Amino acid sequence: MALGSVLVKLGMLSTSDHASVVSMNLFVALLCACIVIGHLLEENRWMNESITALAIGVCTGVVILLTTRGKSSHILVFSEDLFFIYLLPPIIFNAGFQVKKKQFFRNFTTIVLFGAVGTLISFSIIATGATEFFKRLDMGSLDIGDYLAIGAIFSATDSVCTLQVLNQDETPLLYSLVFGEGVVNDATSVVLFNAIQSFDLSHINSSIALQFIGNFFYLFVSSTMLGVVTGLLSAYIIKKLYFGRHSTDREVALMILMAYLSYMLAELFYLSGILTVFFCGIVMSHYTWHNVTESSRVTTKHAFATLSFIAEIFIFLYVGMDALDIEKWRFVSDSPGTSIAVSSVLVSLILVGRAAFVFPLSFLTNLTKKSPNDKIGIKQQVTIWWAGLMRGAVSIALAYNQFTRSGHTQLHGNAIMITSTITIVLFSTVVFGLMTKPLVRILLPSPKHLSSIVSSEPSSPKSFFAPLLENGRGSEVDMACTSIPRPSSLRMLFTFPTHTVHYYWGKLDDAFMRPVFGGGGFVPFVPGSPTERSVHPW
Amino acid sequence: MALGSVLVKLGMLSTSDHASVVSMNLFVALLCACIVIGHLLEENRWMNESITALAIGVCTGVVILLTTRGKSSHILVFSEDLFFIYLLPPIIFNAGFQVKKKQFFRNFTTIVLFGAVGTLISFSIIATGATEFFKRLDMGSLDIGDYLAIGAIFSATDSVCTLQVLNQDETPLLYSLVFGEGVVNDATSVVLFNAIQSFDLSHINSSIALQFIGNFFYLFVSSTMLGVVTGLLSAYIIKKLYFGRHSTDREVALMILMAYLSYMLAELFYLSGILTVFFCGIVMSHYTWHNVTESSRVTTKHAFATLSFIAEIFIFLYVGMDALDIEKWRFVSDSPGTSIAVSSVLVSLILVGRAAFVFPLSFLTNLTKKSPNDKIGIKQQVTIWWAGLMRGAVSIALAYNQFTRSGHTQLHGNAIMITSTITIVLFSTVVFGLMTKPLVRILLPSPKHLSSIVSSEPSSPKSFFAPLLENGRGSEVDMACTSIPRPSSLRMLFTFPTHTVHYYWGKLDDAFMRPVFGGGGFVPFVPGSPTERSVHPW
Repeated sequence: MALGSVLVKLGMLSTSDHASVVSMNLFVALLCACIVIGHLLEENRWMNESITALAIGVCTGVVILLTTRGKSSHILVFSEDLFFIYLLPPIIFNAGFQVKKKQFFRNFTTIVLFGAVGTLISFSIIATGATEFFKRLDMGSLDIGDYLAIGAIFSATDSVCTLQVLNQDETPLLYSLVFGEGVVNDATSVVLFNAIQSFDLSHINSSIALQFIGNFFYLFVSSTMLGVVTGLLSAYIIKKLYFGRHSTDREVALMILMAYLSYMLAELFYLSGILTVFFCGIVMSHYTWHNVTESSRVTTKHAFATLSFIAEIFIFLYVGMDALDIEKWRFVSDSPGTSIAVSSVLVSLILVGRAAFVFPLSFLTNLTKKSPNDKIGIKQQVTIWWAGLMRGAVSIALAYNQFTRSGHTQLHGNAIMITSTITIVLFSTVVFGLMTKPLVRILLPSPKHLSSIVSSEPSSPKSFFAPLLENGRGSEVDMACTSIPRPSSLRMLFTFPTHTVHYYWGKLDDAFMRPVFGGGGFVPFVPGSPTERSVHPW
Repeated sequence: MALGSVLVKLGMLSTSDHASVVSMNLFVALLCACIVIGHLLEENRWMNESITALAIGVCTGVVILLTTRGKSSHILVFSEDLFFIYLLPPIIFNAGFQVKKKQFFRNFTTIVLFGAVGTLISFSIIATGATEFFKRLDMGSLDIGDYLAIGAIFSATDSVCTLQVLNQDETPLLYSLVFGEGVVNDATSVVLFNAIQSFDLSHINSSIALQFIGNFFYLFVSSTMLGVVTGLLSAYIIKKLYFGRHSTDREVALMILMAYLSYMLAELFYLSGILTVFFCGIVMSHYTWHNVTESSRVTTKHAFATLSFIAEIFIFLYVGMDALDIEKWRFVSDSPGTSIAVSSVLVSLILVGRAAFVFPLSFLTNLTKKSPNDKIGIKQQVTIWWAGLMRGAVSIALAYNQFTRSGHTQLHGNAIMITSTITIVLFSTVVFGLMTKPLVRILLPSPKHLSSIVSSEPSSPKSFFAPLLENGRGSEVDMACTSIPRPSSLRMLFTFPTHTVHYYWGKLDDAFMRPVFGGGGFVPFVPGSPTERSVHPW
């Protein structure tokens, strides 16, 4: 048993034997193929990179299945560690690093409301629904812990896929809401899942429930603080030590290592690494990024995006390939009806569970907003609901953790849950994913109009950077823009200064943070100033 | 036994348990510390990054040894796979990517002579010497395969350390000779080592010897060709597919993945991955690099350098930490005299073995050169001899492979060889490494004068790139420079056109390669041309 789990974890490392080398070659070649084909299909209105990678993965799986005569379909064993330790951190860090910070912090309350409270609502509905429906099906032995785990597993939306479907420039409010919610949601689901596994759930009383909630808030706040502190530390080190004697390689290496350190520290203290690394990314892009050389800025911006891009493709390619693993399907082949029923029930629960918090919480949020421009319209609510329906690698990783511990899918119920998770991930990514782009186009036909109302992000300074920061997969960073707020955005800031976290933050930033940690966040744009000159050397 | 080796290989991946998370945190934090301290000590004339990392590693080892009360001193188990599959490829690829190609190809014959023939000479001397001397010591059971392996292990110079000691701008001829030799030497040693392990050496005859030599040349040529083909393929893909629709992230991802693919393909076909990835790096910097966007160029240049930088520090930190592993020393503690004798004999053999090929081969090379400027002076010969004396991670990895297979250092002779390898690596890196910088300064007091004679590399265009490509740890790339050869360098080219590989290569490049694969290698510098405009957008 121990050897088995070690071998599963080993995955990629056992490259001494020739079979592993063949696997790695095939996998790297497939990654290259995904990039090239994804690029060729870029203009296609239905496709996105995730679906391309999934499709290539499934096709490869079929080919391997036929070649090995039905013995196996994957070339790498799915390793939870590989996913949580190596693939997820760069994706989430890059998301924090590239997110439009003004939008994010302006909508901070809404994002946390959606991500934390919303996920809890979704979790309760899915867990309750699963308990009700699955008892009527012939599911084998699932206990209360399993049902709660199912709630947590299927509450975890796929922030990776969302990033590829929505466009930060076209629909900035929606992007920041859906994506920000996605990150908080990931963290909430993982925290919930860990809490379910560690607490004794056979006899729940009010004291345990309070303890649970307290634990949840502690994790939330301390994870965020850890990320912020690590980010600030990196800014301070680079500002103080490297003053006047910059070295691009050292700076970039230090930023990468400190970001990874923040994630590992969170794991060390049993916190949520996802939240930590996300906030570390935000702080690094706000302070550290402004303390380094121009080449470090270009390098970090694109290197982080590239790492994240490779990790994303890796995950989807893998999930596609893993979907055809014949071992898993053998156990459920004698009861295909049950499997289909379970998947259908879960998809319905996901749809209902998300609707049950998006619309009420949007209503609540709208009550607190005075300006009609700030309110979330019904069409936008539908988009938010729809864009968060996809389930991805986090769900798969959690499902593997929960349902393969007691013998690798030996139990009937466990086997069905694993295959259902894969079915739902494939179905939601392909079907919901394919329909999101057209849906956004139908529901929000005039993105330019919308963005001019909602976004206060300056878009004109982008042109200054065109030679330097040209087209990065459509996800333009705002760091450059943030450093030079134009008069128009300042005016916007003063239009509703009292009810934004953003406003108070700006004051604190100017008075205390910037002098200590560096960064160009709120420097007024003065033509000919050092800020300008450092950015445009000509 | 099988479980043991799996656990050893596992190394970093088993992060589920908390102890591994602690280890990873400590290790990442130490990497950060190495970067910061290395930066602070940069001005010091004795220190370099390798020695800093080694010292920090040894100190940490002592602290861990005291904390765990003598139980263990390392936090990661040395994994040969980790080294050969993940750490070495980025270092060698980056070396190829950043090497001054003109210098390298002008001295190509000399480099191959030193790297291949020289390593064979060094190998024979060390293997013969070890056989002679070790038989008189009480060494346990070593067979002929072991002695030949010792020859291969200690013929492998440490190209990583050399990179940090010599300066590409100050002594370009020496740098390209020593470093180029180092790469070819690494490849030769690994090829030799594999040949020794796979051939039946108990009864050598002339047919087996011929087979051995044939195999060696086959490996050499086919590895190089594979690297060149993969590099050209990447150039072709990016030139054709991405024409007019560039995407920085995709380009960078494709370059990284194709480079890694070349290494893995070499492993797949049992070739030398080191040679393959080195030539892939050269081709990529010559063609592919010129087909991508400006931000991709800056990103790849610095991202590859950073990856290589992190891998180098990782290796030295690890070697330092591993040196105090109490397990290894316990076996030899009962015979310290033998251990010291073995190490001393090996160090002497390394010194003699290197002298035995550097001076004769330099003499041979000088005979073929007509211009006195091209000849290798005696002072330069001494520097070449000295700079290649360091032994590093390749030696350790090969020694682990050879001497831990038959039971983990259970045999007395094996245990002594492992500890001797560690001793020699530490000694040569610290002692020879510390003395190289001052030696270069004493022997070659006027590097400016030297470089103006030997180097035909244009140095003035560098200033154009100052805002964009500023200070990268002193290792300025020449790719930018290569794209704009100045009249002076063209004149140099025509001064001795007949005896350079470089010249014929330039003709082929202009006539056939450049139109197909892109690249700005030999475009004459025309002010206001598209080449110039694409580089300086102002």
